[in-house]
Amino acid sequence: MNIISIGILGGGTVGSGVARVLDSNISTIQAQLGARLEIRGVAVNDLSKERDESLSSIALTDDPMTIINDPEISIIVELIGGVETAGELILQAIRKKKHIVTANKALLASRGAEIFAVASEYGVDVFYEGAVGGGIPIIRALRESLSSERIVRIQGIVNGTTNFILSAMTNSGADYDATLRKAMELGYAEADPTADVGGHDAAQKLSILSTLAFRCVVHERDVSVEGIEQIDQVDIALASKYGYTIKPLAVGERQHDNISVGVFPAWVSNNSMLAHVNDVFNAVLVESEALGESMFYGQGAGQLPTGSAVLADIIDMARNIRSQAAGRVPHLAIQDAQIKPGNISAIEDVESGYYLRFSVKDEPGVLGKIATILGEEGLSLRIVDQEIAQDVGTDGVPIVALTHSVKASALSAAIERIDQLVTTVKPTRAMRLVGG
Amino acid sequence: MNIISIGILGGGTVGSGVARVLDSNISTIQAQLGARLEIRGVAVNDLSKERDESLSSIALTDDPMTIINDPEISIIVELIGGVETAGELILQAIRKKKHIVTANKALLASRGAEIFAVASEYGVDVFYEGAVGGGIPIIRALRESLSSERIVRIQGIVNGTTNFILSAMTNSGADYDATLRKAMELGYAEADPTADVGGHDAAQKLSILSTLAFRCVVHERDVSVEGIEQIDQVDIALASKYGYTIKPLAVGERQHDNISVGVFPAWVSNNSMLAHVNDVFNAVLVESEALGESMFYGQGAGQLPTGSAVLADIIDMARNIRSQAAGRVPHLAIQDAQIKPGNISAIEDVESGYYLRFSVKDEPGVLGKIATILGEEGLSLRIVDQEIAQDVGTDGVPIVALTHSVKASALSAAIERIDQLVTTVKPTRAMRLVGG
Repeated sequence: MNIISIGILGGGTVGSGVARVLDSNISTIQAQLGARLEIRGVAVNDLSKERDESLSSIALTDDPMTIINDPEISIIVELIGGVETAGELILQAIRKKKHIVTANKALLASRGAEIFAVASEYGVDVFYEGAVGGGIPIIRALRESLSSERIVRIQGIVNGTTNFILSAMTNSGADYDATLRKAMELGYAEADPTADVGGHDAAQKLSILSTLAFRCVVHERDVSVEGIEQIDQVDIALASKYGYTIKPLAVGERQHDNISVGVFPAWVSNNSMLAHVNDVFNAVLVESEALGESMFYGQGAGQLPTGSAVLADIIDMARNIRSQAAGRVPHLAIQDAQIKPGNISAIEDVESGYYLRFSVKDEPGVLGKIATILGEEGLSLRIVDQEIAQDVGTDGVPIVALTHSVKASALSAAIERIDQLVTTVKPTRAMRLVGG
Repeated sequence: MNIISIGILGGGTVGSGVARVLDSNISTIQAQLGARLEIRGVAVNDLSKERDESLSSIALTDDPMTIINDPEISIIVELIGGVETAGELILQAIRKKKHIVTANKALLASRGAEIFAVASEYGVDVFYEGAVGGGIPIIRALRESLSSERIVRIQGIVNGTTNFILSAMTNSGADYDATLRKAMELGYAEADPTADVGGHDAAQKLSILSTLAFRCVVHERDVSVEGIEQIDQVDIALASKYGYTIKPLAVGERQHDNISVGVFPAWVSNNSMLAHVNDVFNAVLVESEALGESMFYGQGAGQLPTGSAVLADIIDMARNIRSQAAGRVPHLAIQDAQIKPGNISAIEDVESGYYLRFSVKDEPGVLGKIATILGEEGLSLRIVDQEIAQDVGTDGVPIVALTHSVKASALSAAIERIDQLVTTVKPTRAMRLVGG
């Protein structure tokens, strides 16, 4: 039987996950492929460190070039993470005509264009299902399955840490800081959680998803980013009162002739499937012209889910090797020569409905002043609510408004004026309404 | 630019859907493929019939052999439906070395093995994404994306008519007959709805999904089938009381060394994503060993969603043609030589928890008699409820029980005995509990 040999750079959690999943399913993978997959070597940082048992029968080296230069190896799996070293090793491997599987979203978000260009030059494939949404086959869906569709919007819950924190705050009533500590204890948040809670991890993933969905290059720097650190229990309770759930979203959408891309916590209507995606689960809801709404849901992180996605890429790549069909699907779904930068909307031009919470002195005439400013700035309201039992824990009282769709620039202008009123005691909170 | 020519057999709803979606997205498809797709001809039954505008610039013929014999055409799309004619035309086309796209679930469920064998002999691809779940790329997910997974269970809502009827009964409180009439008026149920409401359409789809998921041949005749015709409002109200929603499921699962496959209405826990799949939407929840739960959701029928799925198959096939990679993925995910019949569980061996509703005379000692029989037959109970306000509209009162997991044979034995009690006034209703 034909053997296809794999070299893995990185012997950590995901690397051993790949070895585990391959070991469990070796016979069914062989039955699919008509060939045997074999991990021929794994490059690790420190040979003296104890390794997962799944790697016990595999040759380890601390020199990644041994793996890259091995003529028997046709697929290099990069699981080192980080941008510089990983990028250089991948480029060296491509120049040795090795096909590449990676789960490195940071690398693709910053150096994807360069890597894909060199890969095309050398005629090799670069697959990256594990980079977004862990085990959910969302890259394959956007790159291949939805090839007949014009996609108009993607709404993703693509960061498990923030979904866990907001789900736990919703269920327990605990505040943000206590819930973050709990997430750290459970291993769902890192010691430095900034990249997750601040939205940067989701922004990298959104740039990759948007590039595939809208078939133009979207950079991480194009994505407007707002973290979840400011969410209060009062916002969660109010969302529930009006039939919404607060979710950490990554949204890319066509607006007029442009693409708008943003990461932010939003009020998601309980009528949307996304409102029911809880805990560490991820999902991407796609809206496209012929199919309408479709959704892809599953575990967005973890050793086995991500290992499974990486292994699925290896199998797909092995099929291309066996059929001599490398390059069968272009790296970014469209032919290299057709790739153009996306026209990104200025953030102030993005249109959305909003939830607004004003914190004001409890005295007559306050609502009138706020409503007048909103009207002058062109915001039209669906709901205004002054009768809120919930204690906001400040020296003010809340007024809540839900708006119809409005440009972000008009919203900012209105909030700026309202926050300067002497009757306003705390900055106004605003969150987008989604799927209402 | 390279042109890949397509011939369509069948100029009805889906055929014109394919033409419409291609026409809308011709430039982006070209950018993906680096080639132009062209519908060269459509075979219709009756040339005098008025056709959708999308077909106005395409040559029509009433002789399908003109299409099949056209040497310029490399992809034949079969959208005639039915088993005999469609099957013969597909076999003729394969013998002319044409690749085949079909959305014909009935044909695949009954003659799939024969068609795939001939296709392998002639080295052509047969794709069938549109046969199950309309536009949801569930076939591609099971056949390719989840290639690294051992799948243990699939739970699908794969019939839009029955999901619409049960959703509408849940929302409106109307009874089954009135809701079925409404579904017919809205075009969501056919004039003869038997294949949908009786579960046979879902059984065909489940046989295809199970063959791919469990990598062994599962026939339509292997699937146990129960329709939705017996669902009462009292069952819907009781489900809601206990945190469940009644959904029309198609379930395939590994139990011990066998596969069990069944179509039935079930009590689905509101904690399961499936409980939130409403109206005509479809979804398939997959449980697999490394990834855990994943779900694929979208519109399961309709001109554009199904047209979109067929066109995605055409694009995928065109990629194989351009890379000379036909046969890159085996028809049924595993190599032909490895395909074996599935070991199907006898229906009486299937294990599940159940909702039971007994209709009894309102007199002392009845619950004791029922509980004694359940205990003797080995059923253990989670909840028993006698205090039901809901009027059951008969001359009895209801007793409700939710059981722990039990073999279907034990359940049947218990129900048979209970239904013979003089205190039982109507046959006992039983539905499986899912995702509790």
